[in-house]
Amino acid sequence: MSAPKQHKIVLDESEMPTQWYNIVPDLPAPPPPPLHPGTHEPVGPADLAPLFPMDLILQEVSSERYIDIPDEVQDIYRLWRPSPLFRAHRLEKALGTPARIYYKYEGVSPAGSHKPNTAVPQAYYNAKAGVTKITTETGAGQWGTALALACSMFGIECEVWQVGASYDQKPYRRMMIETFGATVHRSPSELTQAGRAYLAADPNHTGSLGIAISEAVEVAASEPETRYALGSVLNHVLMHQTIIGEEALLQFAKIGETPDFIVGCTGGGSNFAGLSFPFLREKLAGTMNPHLRAVEPASCPSLTHGTYAYDFGDAAGMTPLMKMHTLGHDFVPDPIHAGGLRYHGMAPLISHVYELGLMDAVAIGQSECFAAGVQFARTEGIVPAPEPTHALAETVREALRCKESGEEKVILTALCGHGHFDMAAYDAYLGGRMTDEPMSEERFTAALATVPVLSPQAQSGVMFS
Amino acid sequence: MSAPKQHKIVLDESEMPTQWYNIVPDLPAPPPPPLHPGTHEPVGPADLAPLFPMDLILQEVSSERYIDIPDEVQDIYRLWRPSPLFRAHRLEKALGTPARIYYKYEGVSPAGSHKPNTAVPQAYYNAKAGVTKITTETGAGQWGTALALACSMFGIECEVWQVGASYDQKPYRRMMIETFGATVHRSPSELTQAGRAYLAADPNHTGSLGIAISEAVEVAASEPETRYALGSVLNHVLMHQTIIGEEALLQFAKIGETPDFIVGCTGGGSNFAGLSFPFLREKLAGTMNPHLRAVEPASCPSLTHGTYAYDFGDAAGMTPLMKMHTLGHDFVPDPIHAGGLRYHGMAPLISHVYELGLMDAVAIGQSECFAAGVQFARTEGIVPAPEPTHALAETVREALRCKESGEEKVILTALCGHGHFDMAAYDAYLGGRMTDEPMSEERFTAALATVPVLSPQAQSGVMFS
Repeated sequence: MSAPKQHKIVLDESEMPTQWYNIVPDLPAPPPPPLHPGTHEPVGPADLAPLFPMDLILQEVSSERYIDIPDEVQDIYRLWRPSPLFRAHRLEKALGTPARIYYKYEGVSPAGSHKPNTAVPQAYYNAKAGVTKITTETGAGQWGTALALACSMFGIECEVWQVGASYDQKPYRRMMIETFGATVHRSPSELTQAGRAYLAADPNHTGSLGIAISEAVEVAASEPETRYALGSVLNHVLMHQTIIGEEALLQFAKIGETPDFIVGCTGGGSNFAGLSFPFLREKLAGTMNPHLRAVEPASCPSLTHGTYAYDFGDAAGMTPLMKMHTLGHDFVPDPIHAGGLRYHGMAPLISHVYELGLMDAVAIGQSECFAAGVQFARTEGIVPAPEPTHALAETVREALRCKESGEEKVILTALCGHGHFDMAAYDAYLGGRMTDEPMSEERFTAALATVPVLSPQAQSGVMFS
Repeated sequence: MSAPKQHKIVLDESEMPTQWYNIVPDLPAPPPPPLHPGTHEPVGPADLAPLFPMDLILQEVSSERYIDIPDEVQDIYRLWRPSPLFRAHRLEKALGTPARIYYKYEGVSPAGSHKPNTAVPQAYYNAKAGVTKITTETGAGQWGTALALACSMFGIECEVWQVGASYDQKPYRRMMIETFGATVHRSPSELTQAGRAYLAADPNHTGSLGIAISEAVEVAASEPETRYALGSVLNHVLMHQTIIGEEALLQFAKIGETPDFIVGCTGGGSNFAGLSFPFLREKLAGTMNPHLRAVEPASCPSLTHGTYAYDFGDAAGMTPLMKMHTLGHDFVPDPIHAGGLRYHGMAPLISHVYELGLMDAVAIGQSECFAAGVQFARTEGIVPAPEPTHALAETVREALRCKESGEEKVILTALCGHGHFDMAAYDAYLGGRMTDEPMSEERFTAALATVPVLSPQAQSGVMFS
C-alpha cells in the first residue's frame, strides 16, 4: 500500500502569522497618492477622519513593512484561521495534468469568504476609537455578512445598505446579516438624501453599488460616532488580507514546494492581493519566482480593458480620486452572477503593481468559469462562489497548458469563498440559461468618457508628494 | 500579555482514525434483531440483498468491535477530515458560566453536515459491488446532498426523491444536489407505483419522508444494478459516523480534558451515536464517565414520548420491523424547521442503549433552540443548522446550571452542520413568526395506535436469535 495522498496542509493556531504585510516599502516606486476631489491635492489624514478611525487611516498611508495584528483581532481570527491549503489531487487527475494544483480556501470563515480578515480589524479599530456604529454597502452580501459578524463580536451597531436588486433576489444573505444582529436597508432608501433623490426619479429603482456607497457614506459623515467601512480597494484592506498569503508561505514551506503560478480573481482586488503580495515580496527579494495572474470577468475588465487614471471610487463622485485602472465610475457592468467582481475600478495598489509589470491579467466569460466551478465541485467537493470560479477557469487553462507541454508546474489558486448562497447561478448554468454576451465597445467608450480630466501634473500623481 | 486562548484543536490528516467503531460487542446485552414484516422472523442477509451491497449488510450485522476504513474512503474523508474540535470561549463568556464548552464541528464537510461520513463509504461499497445507480430519499436535503457528492466521487448515478414540500420551498438544496451531478425528483412522482397512487389521491400532494422512501426503495428493488441508501437509523450508518467521536477522543487527549456531559440532537440518531459511542466505550471500560444526553424536538419526541416496540421504518410499511422508540410509523410531525429531526422512530441501537440506561433524553421546543442558535452565531460566528440548535439549547441550559452550582463541567456538543440553507428559519425566528405549539395528546395517541401488534415472543425480539 502506497503512502496516502495528503489533501490538506494545516497549521496549528500557534503557527498563525501575527503581522500583516504592507507591500508599499518593497515596491520599486511608490504608488500615486489619492487626491482631494475638489482641490486635486493629495488627501491628508484629516480629510478621511469623518469616515475612518485614525488607526486605519495611518495604516492606509503607512510605510512600515509589517504591522502587528492586535491580540483582540488574532483571538477572533482563530475562530477559523489558519485556513487550510489544499492539494487538488482529484481535479489534477480529472484534467490529466502533470501540474500540481493547490488552493488556499477562505470559505471556512463563518461568513464564507475572505472578507472577515479585514472586517474584524476594521470593527476592532472602530470600537477602540469609541465608534458605536458602522455603515457600509453590500452587493451580493459577502461583505455585509462579514462586517455584521465582526460588529457583533465587538458590540458595535452595523447598518448595511444592500443593492436593491440583490436585496430582492437573494433574501438569504440579508437574513444571515440580520442573524448576526445588523440592520439591512434596501438601497436606494428613504433614509438618505442620496437615496431619496434616486427614488424620486424612479420609485422602483433597483439600486447599484455606487448608490449604496453614497448612502452609507452620507450617514457615516453626518453622525458623530458613526464611521464607514469598505470591503476592498483601499491599502489597509489589502494589507489585512495578506494573512492569507503569509499562511500559504508557511504551508508551502512545510511541504517543500514553491508556487510557479499564482492566480486569483479580482473585483476590487483584496483577495488577489491578500494571497499574492507576500509571494511578490519573495519574488522581489529573489527567493522565489512565481508568475502572478489576475482574472477578471469579461463583462467588467478594469485591468485588461480600462484606463489607468484618477477616478472616483463611487458612482456619485463623493470619494477621493484614486489612480487606478478604471472603466469609468459611471460604468454599470452586466448583471453577471459574480456580484463581487462588478466594480468599475481596481485597487490602486494592484493597479500600480500591474503598471510596474509585476503581474498580468486575463478576462474570462462566466460560462467557462461556471464549467470550471462544476468540475471543481464534482472532484474536490467544494461548491465555489461565482467569483473564484474565475480563478479556477484560468487554473484549468494553465493545467491543460502543462498537460500539453509536460511541465510539472506548481499552481496556487485563491478559493476565496463557497457558493452556498449562489446556487441559483449554478442552476442557471446547469439549466442552459446562463448568458455570456460580450460587452459592446460603445458601452466601454461611453463609460470611459466619465473619467475626470485632471491637469497633467495632477494626473501624474507626484506633484504634491 | 497572557497566552492566547486556543479556539480549535486540530488534527493532521496523518492522525485521522483508520477504523470505525462498532459498539454492539461492548454492550451488556445484544440489541433485538430486525424482523421480516411478513414472517416476523429475524431478517437474514439475503432478505436485504435487493437493497444493499453485501459489504454493508455484513457491517449491519457485524459483531466485530472495529472495522477498517478502506483506503479509498479515507482518501475522500481527507478532503475535510479530521474535523475541528472548538472550545466555545466566547459563548462561555456570554453565558458567564464556569463550564468549559467544546463543540465538534461537522459543517466543514463539502455537503455542510456529518452526512458524508456515511454517504462516502456507502457509495464506495456499492461501486465495489458493481452497482451503477443508488436511489434515496431526502427531506430538507442534507442527506441527498451528501449522497450526490459521494456518488460523483465514485462515478455512480444518483437519483433522489425529495419530499415535495421541501422541493418547492428549498430550491437551493435541489440545485446543490444537481451541481454534484445527481437527479432530483419531486416526491410523490409519476415514476413509481407508490408515487402514482399518492398523486391519484391528491395531484398536489406535498409528500412525506415515508412516501419518498417508498419510491426510492421501489426503484432500487426493481432494477438489477440499482441499490438503495439510507442516511441514518441503521447500524452500519451509525458505525460510519463514529469517526466523529474517535477524532474527538484524540483531540481531548491532546489538551488533557475529558468531557463530563455529551449532548447531541437526535432525529434518526446517527449524529448523536457518531459522537457519543466511542465515549460510551470508554465509559463502559471505566476510563471516563461522561453523562450522555440526546435532545429531540418537542414536536417529534420518539425517545421521551414514544413506545419501545417493533415498528416499520417507513410510512407505507415496506421495511423490516425494527425494535425502536417510535411514535408510530403513521406519525406526521408538525412542519418544524429542523427537517432532519422529523422522523417517527429512533435508531434501534440508540433505542437499545437508552433502554439499557446508558443515556437519557430531553425534548425542547424550537423557539428555545433558535434563541440558542442566534446566541451561538453572534458569539462563535457559525450559524448552526436548525437540527444542532437543539443540542445547543441543552448546552446553554447545562452551562447555566453550572453557573448556578459553580461546577466547572466539561461539556461536549455535536455541531453537526451549518445553517446556510436554512436562513428562512432564522428569518422566521427573528421576525417573530416562529410557532411552537405543543403537540396534542390525541395526535400522539392516534399515531401510537398504528404500531403493529406482534406476538409476545416476536415482540421480545429474542425467540429466534
